[in-house]
Amino acid sequence: MKLVIGNKNYSSWSLRPWLAMKIAGLPFDEVNHDLYAAGARDQRLRFGPTGKVPVLIDGDVTIWETPAIAEYLAEAAPSLWPADRAARAVARAVCAEMHAGFTALRTQCPMDVHLRTLASVDAALGADLERVAALWADCRARFGAGGDFLFGRFSHADAFFAPVATRIRSYGLPVSQAAQAYAETLLALPAFLEWEAAAGQEARQV
Amino acid sequence: MKLVIGNKNYSSWSLRPWLAMKIAGLPFDEVNHDLYAAGARDQRLRFGPTGKVPVLIDGDVTIWETPAIAEYLAEAAPSLWPADRAARAVARAVCAEMHAGFTALRTQCPMDVHLRTLASVDAALGADLERVAALWADCRARFGAGGDFLFGRFSHADAFFAPVATRIRSYGLPVSQAAQAYAETLLALPAFLEWEAAAGQEARQV
Repeated sequence: MKLVIGNKNYSSWSLRPWLAMKIAGLPFDEVNHDLYAAGARDQRLRFGPTGKVPVLIDGDVTIWETPAIAEYLAEAAPSLWPADRAARAVARAVCAEMHAGFTALRTQCPMDVHLRTLASVDAALGADLERVAALWADCRARFGAGGDFLFGRFSHADAFFAPVATRIRSYGLPVSQAAQAYAETLLALPAFLEWEAAAGQEARQV
Repeated sequence: MKLVIGNKNYSSWSLRPWLAMKIAGLPFDEVNHDLYAAGARDQRLRFGPTGKVPVLIDGDVTIWETPAIAEYLAEAAPSLWPADRAARAVARAVCAEMHAGFTALRTQCPMDVHLRTLASVDAALGADLERVAALWADCRARFGAGGDFLFGRFSHADAFFAPVATRIRSYGLPVSQAAQAYAETLLALPAFLEWEAAAGQEARQV
């Protein structure tokens, strides 16, 4: 399989399937696409119909949109979703929330892995942060037993929230102690550290 | 199972799982929630954590976010996704596009099943309509053989685009002849006609 991804310091959607594939042990070739190069959008339109990254290419199958890539990967590596039916349903629900929601968090605090600053938190951003913390706490309390992740062992849900963990760190966002601890767990994953190191090299080149 | 839905004339997200369950033959009780009643949001927050509809309740499992509901339903009724792995991946990709995209279409032409008007089409809306028509044509051409739907037989992808079919009709939106024909196929589904009739009764009460 080939995974087309954007710049590692900035492309939050690229991080999600990359992390899932690394942790699930699914072998893949990485295709690095520079989102800021001249003609970049035209190039992306050759990878997929929406001109966005990531795109997963498996032989003659091209899959765009991260939630669809996540399901495709889980068909190959079922451990990427929780085994329990109810837990799996909730994991998909929180991933869907991330995909179409958290607008204030995403627009005010775009992923910038190596940035360190202090953001001011308005009402909309505060509401997003409260929902993130509540969602994480709920998943951990109901399904997190026996592991450090939202549903115990690592799943797509953790991959979907990994960019949020970087934002909490980059922008000094105030969250509960439990949320802070979970974010640090994600940021300490060996696969994430590999992404972070590569993001740092890219950031220096920009 | 219980499906909590909003007003049928207006709640496009409610239509999607309702239509899928009807057509897949999954029995369910409908819980009608009036989005415009006093205290409606507080009431919705008792159904699910985001205060949005639809919500699917299956015994002690509560599922919010339509994409997660769709996957849960497909675990019970696998025909709701295409059987072919590549087709299934593309079906999920176009559903994900619908879930987080088509912003101009959704904000300028909100679902209003019984409305008949003529919208003016700006560049953003025109781009959304072009993408809808291209997406439909691509799915039909690659996977639609042997049926009237995007992937041949009815799937979640058709359910996800049913509200778009109502918008094309309600707002007189210009699309290709093929897209128009496909929209009319969706609007002629017996299950959709049942929804439409109920929406008409509600609309008269507002």
